[in-house]
Amino acid sequence: MAREQIQRRVEEWAKAIRDKDLEAVMSLYAPEIVSFDLDPPLRYAGTVEKRRAWREFFAAHAVVAAYELHELDVTVSGDLAVVHSLNHAQGTLAGGKVSDLWVRWTACFRQSAGSWRIVHDHVSVPAEVAQGRAALNLHP
Amino acid sequence: MAREQIQRRVEEWAKAIRDKDLEAVMSLYAPEIVSFDLDPPLRYAGTVEKRRAWREFFAAHAVVAAYELHELDVTVSGDLAVVHSLNHAQGTLAGGKVSDLWVRWTACFRQSAGSWRIVHDHVSVPAEVAQGRAALNLHP
Repeated sequence: MAREQIQRRVEEWAKAIRDKDLEAVMSLYAPEIVSFDLDPPLRYAGTVEKRRAWREFFAAHAVVAAYELHELDVTVSGDLAVVHSLNHAQGTLAGGKVSDLWVRWTACFRQSAGSWRIVHDHVSVPAEVAQGRAALNLHP
Repeated sequence: MAREQIQRRVEEWAKAIRDKDLEAVMSLYAPEIVSFDLDPPLRYAGTVEKRRAWREFFAAHAVVAAYELHELDVTVSGDLAVVHSLNHAQGTLAGGKVSDLWVRWTACFRQSAGSWRIVHDHVSVPAEVAQGRAALNLHP
């Protein structure tokens, strides 16, 4: 079943993040991905920027203690699937500071040659627009 | 064609935002929507919170001069569709201040009883995590 296949793929992907395994993390993305990522810019296309973003995340973290997908929802129709969840990242930064962050994650998958990969993703925290602040301390 | 139908629906929706027409804006959302919205909280379900969010947006704006969908991408498979775009909102706040904001928008549509409605959306600006800032001044 496509649903179970995708669910397994994203759980493996979360494990790859905890393991700081860049190649395994990158294997989930299609070459043509369009990303609205946590950090600027607004939008980018292709895996070069995605690889840079994950490389920076892994470099910033001495240890990724946890990366867990909560309230995971998977919807499939034919060769298209939409996944969303609240992702909880915990770890120790390179400088020794503890980091603990919940992000919202939406990912659009396409099946091609029997394999499901992400063609669009959106990762964010809410914004407190009037104050110009990113809401980094929220949890469900 | 579903693709053209959805494209027309979202263009009408953008016009409804410019017109500050709350009911027309709300008509795009399914009752069971799960939203990762621009403002806190992280996640909410149902149209009550969505209605509150739009009501606050319209109350904050004396005039919505523009609401435009750029780099619009629509993918359809059966009864599921994914739309993403960079949405440009311009206006005058109730206090007289000019507002100009680009947000990233991802929306997941389902077709039910012949009508396409949003069952999941994700609206955000990027975050400058280390500085705790929301990136409110970006443009494509």
